[in-house]
Amino acid sequence: MTTLPAFCTPVPLDKAYRLLNHGPTVLVSSSHAGEHNVMAAAWSMPLDFSPPKVTVVIDKATHTRALMEGSGWFALNVPARGLAQATLGVGSDSAASAPDKLQRHGIQLFQPEGCDVPLVQDCVGWLLCKLVPEPHNQQTYDLFIGEVTQAWADARVFVNGHWEFDKAPDDLRTLHYVAGGQFFVIGDSLKLKA
Amino acid sequence: MTTLPAFCTPVPLDKAYRLLNHGPTVLVSSSHAGEHNVMAAAWSMPLDFSPPKVTVVIDKATHTRALMEGSGWFALNVPARGLAQATLGVGSDSAASAPDKLQRHGIQLFQPEGCDVPLVQDCVGWLLCKLVPEPHNQQTYDLFIGEVTQAWADARVFVNGHWEFDKAPDDLRTLHYVAGGQFFVIGDSLKLKA
Repeated sequence: MTTLPAFCTPVPLDKAYRLLNHGPTVLVSSSHAGEHNVMAAAWSMPLDFSPPKVTVVIDKATHTRALMEGSGWFALNVPARGLAQATLGVGSDSAASAPDKLQRHGIQLFQPEGCDVPLVQDCVGWLLCKLVPEPHNQQTYDLFIGEVTQAWADARVFVNGHWEFDKAPDDLRTLHYVAGGQFFVIGDSLKLKA
Repeated sequence: MTTLPAFCTPVPLDKAYRLLNHGPTVLVSSSHAGEHNVMAAAWSMPLDFSPPKVTVVIDKATHTRALMEGSGWFALNVPARGLAQATLGVGSDSAASAPDKLQRHGIQLFQPEGCDVPLVQDCVGWLLCKLVPEPHNQQTYDLFIGEVTQAWADARVFVNGHWEFDKAPDDLRTLHYVAGGQFFVIGDSLKLKA
């Protein structure tokens, strides 16, 4: 589908790093040669402001890695509390042992115009990334670098380049995974002056 | 000083990644040739479980970078709500323009036995890291990799390898920076079964 979900609005590229700056767990989506997949990743971060870049750690055993390396593209989707169970599910099951894992965990996809990577519905942020090939990092550290070429956010909770979790439904708070099925959701805002 | 602050207890190395897994903003401390410094960094993440490794982005303009490259060591300190103003302060001032920035922002240091890098008091987690030299990453992306050789946490809030923010004072909740002086503190726990 090419229609954007309700509330999904473009984010200017110079503000895209803010979707990841507070350290949320992400869903990595990818597509190649008619296949697609979604996995969870707690290890991702912004790498640069302009052009915006990100890093993410992707294990060699994952189907996602083959799709990313095949197509040269991936997307980081920022899930929120409403997707906690699905995030744990696609992070626990592998495409190899559970080929129906997306259906099983209720993951629904959409694809904006001009975006070849499927994105995950009901997330609150999305970053489409072009892989920056760095074979040494990929082989030695499972570390992938991407340049963000488009970004979107849920306009109910990301407004004028700022997260407004305090004003939105609790189900839109981002997820921060620890281990063993335990997440924290993001909490109160603190606005300070230097 | 070599005495550990109250509550600061060793964390087994196989659990050290959990100090960073939920994406907190960190304070980077370093020391070389009689000088030391502390800066804030929102862009850090775990890179491996065993041996535990981390990544952190450190700008070329920082004094911290010179100290890290000089000594080959650095530490990631995980500040909490009680240190929010100090975290913003040492993240905004530079050692070049404000040589007294640590005193100015009330940052106090301690140094455990056998740890050559000063650590920041009143944090809730600490990771001592040996720089893994990767000149291409450092030069091209300002990206530094470290292997964690020792870790500690505040035993009031990190218990048996798990954060227990819900049972501890609110001032011990970790900080998650966005931009423009705005942080979020970590919120509620969600414990799910796969």
